[in-house]
Amino acid sequence: MVAHGSRAAAANQAHRELAAALDQVVAPSVVGAFMELAEPSVGDAIATAAREGATTVAVLPYFLHPGRHQELDIPRLVADAAELFPDVSIGLLEAFGSDPAVVELLAAQVSRGLPES
Amino acid sequence: MVAHGSRAAAANQAHRELAAALDQVVAPSVVGAFMELAEPSVGDAIATAAREGATTVAVLPYFLHPGRHQELDIPRLVADAAELFPDVSIGLLEAFGSDPAVVELLAAQVSRGLPES
Repeated sequence: MVAHGSRAAAANQAHRELAAALDQVVAPSVVGAFMELAEPSVGDAIATAAREGATTVAVLPYFLHPGRHQELDIPRLVADAAELFPDVSIGLLEAFGSDPAVVELLAAQVSRGLPES
Repeated sequence: MVAHGSRAAAANQAHRELAAALDQVVAPSVVGAFMELAEPSVGDAIATAAREGATTVAVLPYFLHPGRHQELDIPRLVADAAELFPDVSIGLLEAFGSDPAVVELLAAQVSRGLPES
């Protein structure tokens, strides 16, 4: 699960913790990785998975809105890794924020957060 | 609902569309606003709401991970607006990404996105 990466260590740590929480509730191993500014990089995370015997890696961009990072930078990182590890099937999932369920989650937040009128 | 704001017009437009989708499913009016780089600013969005007769405004930061923007920049924008509109009750909600339900949403994305093993 790839976050942008931040100069703020707390933000990077929050991403690692979110990945660990996700790892607890899904069957595949989940690792928090970063597009830039923090470690592990996407390439390093995929290399570790390959070394540990993974045959399939899915890359989930933890991004809210479309843009250069989602459309160019992350696909390029994934393509670079795919070239290095031809025996691993590496797929790029849709970005987190493109899920229509995000609207439902926001609706619940708004409902909880507003005083009753 | 405040996004960071982007130099990419498509990202800003996606935020406005997400706000419009949310507006359709919750009772309060929802407006997409931006911390920087796009319009309306947080202050402008609150000013418009006040002019239209709002007595309560809740500011929802559409951010994934904690950091300077969530902790300093957006609270400052909200405090500035609160000073300008003393008759409007202006609250700052928790950031979107701090919701534990985000893990469930990610888990569903991972389950959908992986080939069956």
